[in-house]
Amino acid sequence: MTYELHYWPTIQGRGEFVRLALEAAGAPYIDIARGPEDAGRGMPAMLRALEARGERHPPFAPPFLKDGDFVVGQTAAILQYVAPTLKLVSRSEQARAWTMQIQLTIADMVTEAHDTHHPIAASLYYEGQKPEALRRAGDFCRARMPKFLQWFERILSQNSAGERFLVGGRLSYADLSLFQLVEGLRYAFPQAAERVLAGTPRIVALHDRVAALPRVAAYLRSERRIPFNEEGIFRRYAELDVG
Amino acid sequence: MTYELHYWPTIQGRGEFVRLALEAAGAPYIDIARGPEDAGRGMPAMLRALEARGERHPPFAPPFLKDGDFVVGQTAAILQYVAPTLKLVSRSEQARAWTMQIQLTIADMVTEAHDTHHPIAASLYYEGQKPEALRRAGDFCRARMPKFLQWFERILSQNSAGERFLVGGRLSYADLSLFQLVEGLRYAFPQAAERVLAGTPRIVALHDRVAALPRVAAYLRSERRIPFNEEGIFRRYAELDVG
Repeated sequence: MTYELHYWPTIQGRGEFVRLALEAAGAPYIDIARGPEDAGRGMPAMLRALEARGERHPPFAPPFLKDGDFVVGQTAAILQYVAPTLKLVSRSEQARAWTMQIQLTIADMVTEAHDTHHPIAASLYYEGQKPEALRRAGDFCRARMPKFLQWFERILSQNSAGERFLVGGRLSYADLSLFQLVEGLRYAFPQAAERVLAGTPRIVALHDRVAALPRVAAYLRSERRIPFNEEGIFRRYAELDVG
Repeated sequence: MTYELHYWPTIQGRGEFVRLALEAAGAPYIDIARGPEDAGRGMPAMLRALEARGERHPPFAPPFLKDGDFVVGQTAAILQYVAPTLKLVSRSEQARAWTMQIQLTIADMVTEAHDTHHPIAASLYYEGQKPEALRRAGDFCRARMPKFLQWFERILSQNSAGERFLVGGRLSYADLSLFQLVEGLRYAFPQAAERVLAGTPRIVALHDRVAALPRVAAYLRSERRIPFNEEGIFRRYAELDVG
């Protein structure tokens, strides 16, 4: 079964957490909005799917995934849904709940990283909320980033199966998402991120281990990996990098 | 098995979504931080559990739930974990994913409601970020609240099993959470919420149906239901209610 991924075509954004899971598992998928319109893909196809009147499970926003007739949105819910098939989560209810808990904490940090450049309204330009952004980024870099990353470091150190993975002794979608979080933080906040990551060696090792997985490494080298840019969640504005 | 709920003792906050599920299901639970310290409960007991060094699944923050030896945090992950036992979700993977997707969208709106009074930093007082709060609340009341609530209204109207519940033809934890969201919005933004809810009759009917469930009604009348106040997520600051 070929999955259909629906997400904004020019940014990594939240879609990247899903892309990484599909890529790491070698799952066949079509990145709909990045396809050619004359083949029925592209943005029009995504917007049609988003607004379909007869859809029983209409997503609130991209990303969403189509698995045959079934549509699922919300990054963490998508991952939770596909992970058993992709073998990116253990089957036990407790392991699934723990993996989800980590993923939701990553999602919280992603939202806070986004809000450093959009603390007032996602509908306004960054330039229209820059003083507020400077204040929020200061708190994010000084207080929130250390707090979150120290928690990920702690759970790696307390994993009874060892420090190689977040959940038990095998790769899960949460590891892929933590890799992406580190990528994003390093892009958006190079000084602040390096300062905090200097104290979290287990996270850095996990990031490097994920980057070296053959399928992930091939993906990162490919054109399917969209470069970071200043339209996505992680944006490099030097003034917000309070190192 | 008696669950242990760990959450800040003086606010509804995110713990309330878990409380409502436990109460609606008639599940036995102890609200640890609200118990007497001389019986080993209260805030010290919660903080001990939060910081336990040997814990395999240490939560990032309250709320968290203990089910015997297993600890689970993050509101949506807690609900997802307990819901099959409490019969507050269908067993099918697709129904579970759809219920989770709705819950995560409710959670996103809850975060945005919180950030109306704390757009810069949760660690600062409201008074220290009031100009920013006024701007953010304006966008929340005028743009975000209608967008979110219209989506909940739409999925109720497109439920092939009827408009009584969000998922299929029976009560799920998402219904309880949508009830709580309406309660919070009406408390914090009485004018703005009523204006939007006037156009979403299915949400209002669902809210009233949940409030009338015998166990929920008994809970809401009890002292276990903490009144809304200005320390929680939903705060009534007249200047933020842009009606």
